[in-house]
Amino acid sequence: MAHAPVMTRQEVEDFLDREFPQLHHDGRSFHVEEVGPMSARMRLDAHERHLRPGETISGPAMMTLADVALYAAILAQIGPVGLAVTTSLNFNFLRKPKLAPLIADVRLLKLGKRLAVGEVSLYSQGEAEVVCHATGTYSIPDRR
Amino acid sequence: MAHAPVMTRQEVEDFLDREFPQLHHDGRSFHVEEVGPMSARMRLDAHERHLRPGETISGPAMMTLADVALYAAILAQIGPVGLAVTTSLNFNFLRKPKLAPLIADVRLLKLGKRLAVGEVSLYSQGEAEVVCHATGTYSIPDRR
Amino acid sequence: MAHAPVMTRQEVEDFLDREFPQLHHDGRSFHVEEVGPMSARMRLDAHERHLRPGETISGPAMMTLADVALYAAILAQIGPVGLAVTTSLNFNFLRKPKLAPLIADVRLLKLGKRLAVGEVSLYSQGEAEVVCHATGTYSIPDRR
Amino acid sequence: MAHAPVMTRQEVEDFLDREFPQLHHDGRSFHVEEVGPMSARMRLDAHERHLRPGETISGPAMMTLADVALYAAILAQIGPVGLAVTTSLNFNFLRKPKLAPLIADVRLLKLGKRLAVGEVSLYSQGEAEVVCHATGTYSIPDRR
Repeated sequence: MAHAPVMTRQEVEDFLDREFPQLHHDGRSFHVEEVGPMSARMRLDAHERHLRPGETISGPAMMTLADVALYAAILAQIGPVGLAVTTSLNFNFLRKPKLAPLIADVRLLKLGKRLAVGEVSLYSQGEAEVVCHATGTYSIPDRR
Repeated sequence: MAHAPVMTRQEVEDFLDREFPQLHHDGRSFHVEEVGPMSARMRLDAHERHLRPGETISGPAMMTLADVALYAAILAQIGPVGLAVTTSLNFNFLRKPKLAPLIADVRLLKLGKRLAVGEVSLYSQGEAEVVCHATGTYSIPDRR
Repeated sequence: MAHAPVMTRQEVEDFLDREFPQLHHDGRSFHVEEVGPMSARMRLDAHERHLRPGETISGPAMMTLADVALYAAILAQIGPVGLAVTTSLNFNFLRKPKLAPLIADVRLLKLGKRLAVGEVSLYSQGEAEVVCHATGTYSIPDRR
Repeated sequence: MAHAPVMTRQEVEDFLDREFPQLHHDGRSFHVEEVGPMSARMRLDAHERHLRPGETISGPAMMTLADVALYAAILAQIGPVGLAVTTSLNFNFLRKPKLAPLIADVRLLKLGKRLAVGEVSLYSQGEAEVVCHATGTYSIPDRR
């Protein structure tokens, strides 16, 4: 179940940069920190457009980070052979994140032929408490 | 259950502009089209940062629109007496949206003392098919 | 998008009886009331094991009804050519249902080659208010 | 955040037996195996009514176990001072469970004044792979 990923951290980051340049509109904010077997870690260095009053990071910025981090984890396992498509996402918002880099820890729960499912815990860098928890399902294109 | 809203469309839009100026980073994209009893409609005129390759609107842009539209619907019913907080969101992504204005139709399912729950259908303006369906729960602050 | 279903109400009910006899453990509780284009309606006549203190119907009984009603709606559209499998379900519990027959109204949002997605509103027979809202995703087996 | 629970495993089991006798309709199936700080573990010894063709445990049986296990975890932390109410549940069904005791491992992510949020991993006893993953939100009554 937990083979080594087929792409390196750098290859995943390069792929995201090339395929989703809009993520970096106004400057790079999303960073791939690590990829591993059935896992990945990403970081959001929040730009002004990701903030909300009260010195916190917006819900949509958290949702974007969770989605791209799940995508990165899947990509790392199956390689850039075709584009996985997000089919569902579920979020529980638990606490207000600090104005600090936001970390997304992904654990894939299933990597099937047609569907991949994973969970993500988001927390402020250096803090223990999860600020947002997400689960997501991705449809994987036929690979021949 | 379905009283007239206590804020007008314009009042809701003004409130969002004032409280969430970051939504309009790079120019106004999110518009309140209508508020009604237990309902609201918003529109996203997608900016370049909301797009994805293949001439479509990004998942995070859809999620942002759904979240703000649910928020606007609740605000219209209870007034600007305190800030509701998103506690959970669930999304099913059904089809790729066209490169056209994206409409969010909100129907509130419950407006309790502590929690409000609603559903949102997103579709490309002028099209019948739902491209994304969302449900969300918001915690409502104590009102005294 | 909304062709006539390929199975009748009776055929769907017979199929469920044959394939899922455990649903009727202790006597028949689940009834297919109607099937239509991208839709279905089912009814639960709650048995004692579906109840909870305070004269209400249990959460698990509501979840079972929603799941089987979504399944029935999909079955009616695609026919008994193979078994769809539930891949995700999301529930919002809004109010306590009365001690009355519980109705599930299903609307399919997507019926693709690989995935079907639908939403369900549950309400007590004769009442207007939704007591539970659900969305679900089903994986559809390859049809050749 | 992670104080010792205020109820023992036995006290939680006794409370569930007393308050939800319908869970044991046809004989005891649900067992509290363990309670801990922000956690609990329950077990389902599936009865015939929990089964499905193909020698597997039904989706509704898995949903019931996840719901009651989350409830038990919250109860253990806050005590029997009033009844928490399930407000939302989200399930991802990953694999067919074996015909074996089904274990639910709960981790509470938040225990606030008004809302508790947790996640549950279900797996067949003795197996490593998660067969179903759930998250749930519970409304906590005012405690004075």
